[in-house]
Amino acid sequence: MRRIYIDNSASSRVDDEVVREMLPYFTENYGNASSLHSFGSEAKEAMEKARGKVAAFIGAKASEIIFTAGGTESDNMALRGVAYANRAKGNHIITSNIEHPAVLETCMALEREGFAMSYVKVDGEGLVDAADVAKAITPKTVLVSIMHANNEIGTVQPVEEIGKVCREKGVAFHTDAVQSAGKIPIDVRKISAGLLTLTAHKFHGPKGVGALFVGEGVRLQPIITGGGHEKGLRSSTENVPGIAGMGKACEVAGRDLEKNAAKMRKMRDRLVGETLKIEETYLNGSREKRLPHNANFRFLGIEGESLVMMLDEKGIAASTGSACSSKKLQASHVLLALGLPEWQTHGSLRLTLSKYNTQEEVAGVLEILPGVVSRLRGMSPVWRRIKAGERIEDSYGKHVH
Amino acid sequence: MRRIYIDNSASSRVDDEVVREMLPYFTENYGNASSLHSFGSEAKEAMEKARGKVAAFIGAKASEIIFTAGGTESDNMALRGVAYANRAKGNHIITSNIEHPAVLETCMALEREGFAMSYVKVDGEGLVDAADVAKAITPKTVLVSIMHANNEIGTVQPVEEIGKVCREKGVAFHTDAVQSAGKIPIDVRKISAGLLTLTAHKFHGPKGVGALFVGEGVRLQPIITGGGHEKGLRSSTENVPGIAGMGKACEVAGRDLEKNAAKMRKMRDRLVGETLKIEETYLNGSREKRLPHNANFRFLGIEGESLVMMLDEKGIAASTGSACSSKKLQASHVLLALGLPEWQTHGSLRLTLSKYNTQEEVAGVLEILPGVVSRLRGMSPVWRRIKAGERIEDSYGKHVH
Repeated sequence: MRRIYIDNSASSRVDDEVVREMLPYFTENYGNASSLHSFGSEAKEAMEKARGKVAAFIGAKASEIIFTAGGTESDNMALRGVAYANRAKGNHIITSNIEHPAVLETCMALEREGFAMSYVKVDGEGLVDAADVAKAITPKTVLVSIMHANNEIGTVQPVEEIGKVCREKGVAFHTDAVQSAGKIPIDVRKISAGLLTLTAHKFHGPKGVGALFVGEGVRLQPIITGGGHEKGLRSSTENVPGIAGMGKACEVAGRDLEKNAAKMRKMRDRLVGETLKIEETYLNGSREKRLPHNANFRFLGIEGESLVMMLDEKGIAASTGSACSSKKLQASHVLLALGLPEWQTHGSLRLTLSKYNTQEEVAGVLEILPGVVSRLRGMSPVWRRIKAGERIEDSYGKHVH
Repeated sequence: MRRIYIDNSASSRVDDEVVREMLPYFTENYGNASSLHSFGSEAKEAMEKARGKVAAFIGAKASEIIFTAGGTESDNMALRGVAYANRAKGNHIITSNIEHPAVLETCMALEREGFAMSYVKVDGEGLVDAADVAKAITPKTVLVSIMHANNEIGTVQPVEEIGKVCREKGVAFHTDAVQSAGKIPIDVRKISAGLLTLTAHKFHGPKGVGALFVGEGVRLQPIITGGGHEKGLRSSTENVPGIAGMGKACEVAGRDLEKNAAKMRKMRDRLVGETLKIEETYLNGSREKRLPHNANFRFLGIEGESLVMMLDEKGIAASTGSACSSKKLQASHVLLALGLPEWQTHGSLRLTLSKYNTQEEVAGVLEILPGVVSRLRGMSPVWRRIKAGERIEDSYGKHVH
């Protein structure tokens, strides 16, 4: 059976160029980058070359890049690091209500430790208003953390405006760019970002390696202590093959960004156009301010999990929302934040493309999807009620709106 | 020029079997292990297979293994995790004065946060006395952290006795087994360990992946929060290729442990026997209670850094002590803890073997080392004074003993 992978926001295929870049560091140049001998200096050189590539990818200086084990660690380092280092200045952090759990759960953990949080709301398309951020800033605010683009619905935030507000008020601005990297251009100066999160595996790099951009002048306390690697901000023997792979992934993603974005946008627009022809089917998120590879639909009357599993049986790998919460069977906090009634949030399907997808695959998805939706609706009492014109009330328990 | 890598405690060559195990997860089974579709379940399956192998390697259950990004993170998770989760019980932690910086620096950070530390001293061979640990335990003690074997001098601690003391007093016992893994057998039940740290790259696995054994009943607070991976203890998209590689590295290391240990011991004993023929040269650490692959010498009258650099010019990759502090040019805290005068601690050389080293390489080292020592001593005013029978006083500043 042909398999179509259309869940690239969960993770992506590693580029062959990236694998080739990594391989020598497993079995030939396997030194510890902190060692004084030639094996060590070769490893160090590979790492610094990669640091330059990551920096170039986001318009930063190499000295502003700290390598981590991935997006979640980078987000934790940004939030906890700034919170702990700036206790003397204040204890207030601003974020949005549609952030990734790496940010939201960490904010809630910080709240339990005595920090004060403000959760800015989004509009029906998932957009944060920079004016709301400005209003939330107090003299005790030490950090604003608003994601560059949402992982479920692909909405791209007005990060330049938000960054400008933060710059003017003298507050550090962190943005999680895990989903936008490789899809739309990133420039930390234009965004006025003080901190920015990246992870390699979302743009054809390896899993287990990420980076945190830390602009000059931003004070951080490390969350992992030890030998003092990465300027004392992230102790651990450096993951040289992973870092070399991430550097190459940045180089490739930056080089081919426009071409790949155009290709993905074309496929995505076809997916959206055709899928919205299915009755009672809607696009979640913004039509315009959206990552080029993301489509997120809601099909009234069916369960997203059943849809994903039935598509999987037909060889199509998709998701309901983020992989990180795919096994929780809770309503998506992102879709709820859009103001949707809870019963509608359970029928969502996220399709996320990559440069490896083809129009043939898109055709394959479009051939299978309507039938699967129809079959599930045929078994759905909610769908029967919708068709009969009955009013649907939320029956998912505590989260009723 | 022939290159001889004899710094395997800094990092080691990845086994070809391990690389083969990892490769499919970059470009074929590249799913996110949390995804509901078949790409996800294949990734999940690989991860769980690896978890079983890591568990078997140390006599644990698979459910007791948490994957991390390496030894430093595992140590931080053990120390901070137990400290934060058990505040209600007590704030006291016991460790030794020869731990790796991942433990020592973290203990010092916890001290700044209000936790109380006891640093148990070692004897002249670097051995902790279990009776000293017993004496240090108070009703407020929540954790004892003593490394299985030291990274610089290879001294193997009486972890079974220390574990027994902890078990009897009802205190969780953490041991950093980063250096012992693959060199001597590890059995978490025999050690009575509640927590145990591993990192793959020290035993021919990849860099950037490690594990923390967390025994049933041990309470931990996560240091990295987010999507709730690894039973909520370590959020982050799982590093599937790295984890698969670590599983294979554990399988290979466990399978060939005795054979490889015997091979390394034989080479090591030859290195020690021949090198100690050089005048005013001593072995640091215990002769008997020592990892089979470790030799750590002190050559009076010379600087270890110069020795390492001159050996590197001749193609030999060695170190003065740990890679993590090799660029700091400070006296080794481990050698100082043995009671050595500071001026003697600066002339140390650590040679650490692996299964890939050969007797030919050992012969190569033994051919070059005496000449290099002699050349450096010829340029050393300290050596001239030693030869003249003068008394040497510490002149390294504040650390005078």
